[in-house]
Amino acid sequence: MHAENRFLETTDIPGTPVYDGRHAEIGAVDDLIVDTITGKVRYAILSFGGFLGLGKSQYVVPWTALKWDSELEGYVTGITEDQLQSSPDYDPNSLRNRDAETRLHEAYGVPGYWQPEPQG
Amino acid sequence: MHAENRFLETTDIPGTPVYDGRHAEIGAVDDLIVDTITGKVRYAILSFGGFLGLGKSQYVVPWTALKWDSELEGYVTGITEDQLQSSPDYDPNSLRNRDAETRLHEAYGVPGYWQPEPQG
Repeated sequence: MHAENRFLETTDIPGTPVYDGRHAEIGAVDDLIVDTITGKVRYAILSFGGFLGLGKSQYVVPWTALKWDSELEGYVTGITEDQLQSSPDYDPNSLRNRDAETRLHEAYGVPGYWQPEPQG
Repeated sequence: MHAENRFLETTDIPGTPVYDGRHAEIGAVDDLIVDTITGKVRYAILSFGGFLGLGKSQYVVPWTALKWDSELEGYVTGITEDQLQSSPDYDPNSLRNRDAETRLHEAYGVPGYWQPEPQG
């Protein structure tokens, strides 16, 4: 059995809330970055208000750092202020470079999408 | 080795051209429908001009019916006018129903995303 599909048109994505592990709203999804060939979302562009809204206005976060919560109708993430502050700057060109992608995933402590998916 | 990633922000998706098998431009992608849980694109919402622009203004087409072409910077599809005319009407609620999803994929003669991916 699989969970109920949660389909969303991507033009409706901007504004989708992002919550921390305690379910406090900390930001929003501004955009998704999709691989046009595979049709898989690889990154989300997030903006943060409040204490997390330091430095950059937007952060590129690996998709694997976000988990959809059906009750909250938004994404829950365990990323921390420290991770955001030490994350590499967003450079669209860097996303075509596996080394830079690796650094970006490591900065958020999440596995790369190019690694085998965990079973089960 | 894998092909170069072709990342695109989803808010830039609307207007992406769609070509037929002879590389004639026949329409455009208006939106993508993504599964918020898996982060995988499942459908594209397409609009067609010209002789394909009959009946409905938009068509929901399974993602597996589109193939990215790096040189054209757009999607190539083998879907035909007959398929479009006989395709089920788009009903957002139907997309949460596996039977309806099956009918939609069958209408375009493409495998369902829930089927095992071909190897190789």
